[in-house]
Amino acid sequence: MVISPGQASVGFIGLGVMGHSMAGHILAGGYDLHVYTRTASKAEELTGRGAVWQETPAKLAQACDIILTMVGYPQDVEELYLGEDGLIANARHGAYLLDMTTSSPALARRIGEAADKRGLHALDAPVSGGDIGAREGRLSIMIGGEAEDVEVLRPILSLMGRQIVHQGPAGAGQHTKMCNQIAIASNMMGVCEAMAYAESAGLDPQTVLKSIESGAAGSWSLSNLAPRIIAGDLAPGFYIKHFIKDMGIALESAKEMNVSTPGLSLAEALYRQLAEKGYQDQGTQALIRYYSSM
Amino acid sequence: MVISPGQASVGFIGLGVMGHSMAGHILAGGYDLHVYTRTASKAEELTGRGAVWQETPAKLAQACDIILTMVGYPQDVEELYLGEDGLIANARHGAYLLDMTTSSPALARRIGEAADKRGLHALDAPVSGGDIGAREGRLSIMIGGEAEDVEVLRPILSLMGRQIVHQGPAGAGQHTKMCNQIAIASNMMGVCEAMAYAESAGLDPQTVLKSIESGAAGSWSLSNLAPRIIAGDLAPGFYIKHFIKDMGIALESAKEMNVSTPGLSLAEALYRQLAEKGYQDQGTQALIRYYSSM
Repeated sequence: MVISPGQASVGFIGLGVMGHSMAGHILAGGYDLHVYTRTASKAEELTGRGAVWQETPAKLAQACDIILTMVGYPQDVEELYLGEDGLIANARHGAYLLDMTTSSPALARRIGEAADKRGLHALDAPVSGGDIGAREGRLSIMIGGEAEDVEVLRPILSLMGRQIVHQGPAGAGQHTKMCNQIAIASNMMGVCEAMAYAESAGLDPQTVLKSIESGAAGSWSLSNLAPRIIAGDLAPGFYIKHFIKDMGIALESAKEMNVSTPGLSLAEALYRQLAEKGYQDQGTQALIRYYSSM
Repeated sequence: MVISPGQASVGFIGLGVMGHSMAGHILAGGYDLHVYTRTASKAEELTGRGAVWQETPAKLAQACDIILTMVGYPQDVEELYLGEDGLIANARHGAYLLDMTTSSPALARRIGEAADKRGLHALDAPVSGGDIGAREGRLSIMIGGEAEDVEVLRPILSLMGRQIVHQGPAGAGQHTKMCNQIAIASNMMGVCEAMAYAESAGLDPQTVLKSIESGAAGSWSLSNLAPRIIAGDLAPGFYIKHFIKDMGIALESAKEMNVSTPGLSLAEALYRQLAEKGYQDQGTQALIRYYSSM
């Protein structure tokens, strides 16, 4: 199949903050775009620009050669793909199904197998880079599936991301995203503990950053989230509730593989405590509240 | 006091890997350099270049206007500064004493007070940047003490470091270094857990790095130590035994201040387990051995 504007119709399901930006890039790239999302009003901006609204995922599937999905939780993905009215049951023969939700590697493999049986091409392709990366079309896209399918889809993926890497068979994209979240989880404790310590020691946290952020303690989180902590800005770049979901998937997956992850377990427990205290809609930097009221 | 080559005699105590490089920069800067270190043979290269050997710390103190120290453990610092034959008791009136060892903030304050009483200028100035930073004269130097003393010493410090930051009163340099080590400690768990997970999931860890190192999971440790883990290179950039020392100081100091540091506590416990298994002379990236034999 040749993937180029005018020759392939593309469906996008899930128009949250991330999905909306990503679908917008596909539309701007000249593709015939079909959309579905649970809250129909979220599609209005895109339909105003020419996207076609579809009443259900099944109807969207029947109209498209390529379907991208960006929904919430693994159970949403499961229902959307494997449910009776789902994508696998309704997609055109030979269609490409690409789930960009951060979801379970095991589920991605099940979807891969179900798609195979129906002559469909399924890939798991979660992203990192957040709302800004989605808006600016410079996400990192981590892909599990067949290498040749990744090449077929590369023109479309390039509209949304800069780092487009095939990581292995079905599930490998999700596994890679789990590595990403695992690395972040423990580091967030380090960043917040360093900031809380600095405050208690009577240091100026900003001046501390000047000494430590460009060396061996340096990290994206230290440079980008510690300044927000210092400024008292706990607004979500990435929601605590979503991070807890991701860490839960990682823990389950690690357990299945017998990988020990004490740092991840601890971080997840701290974040759950925060969520129980009402911080679930704050950004991940609100972990500082576990340590300090700074 | 004017600090310039030919006008100030500088003493350096502790010629380990770090101290040797640092003292060498001072000598190369044209200063009259006096040296002492426990293992006399470690001074030979410097005395061959014109440094003056002193038989004891007390004799060195009597000969110098500025004394820099870079020794091992807080108990070494305590003995060297506060012991009967130590620097405080033997330094010239008005001398500058700068401890660059990573040591206890509380001890740094005690040294500061003892120095004050004798009309001496004491500062704590631990560094980060490792052996390479020491060799290349681009350490980050975090300083506790009087701001005007930092300015007096800046010409000499500039020979050893690029980032020279006054962090506050006596002890503030050590506290800042603790923030640095705290941020590293938890992050090392994240990096190693991500690599161990990647391996168990059948991913290529190098390809995983390609997807995750430039985003929100990115860190100095991920970019610099994960490749060594993948290559099976556990040689020390920074020794596990020294990191355990530093984490112990941080834990004690955090406890004194009532700062909760569960991430640090966990990382320290994992590193101690590794040390008990014989990994104390490996680099900090050998934490991977807790998780995997990759």
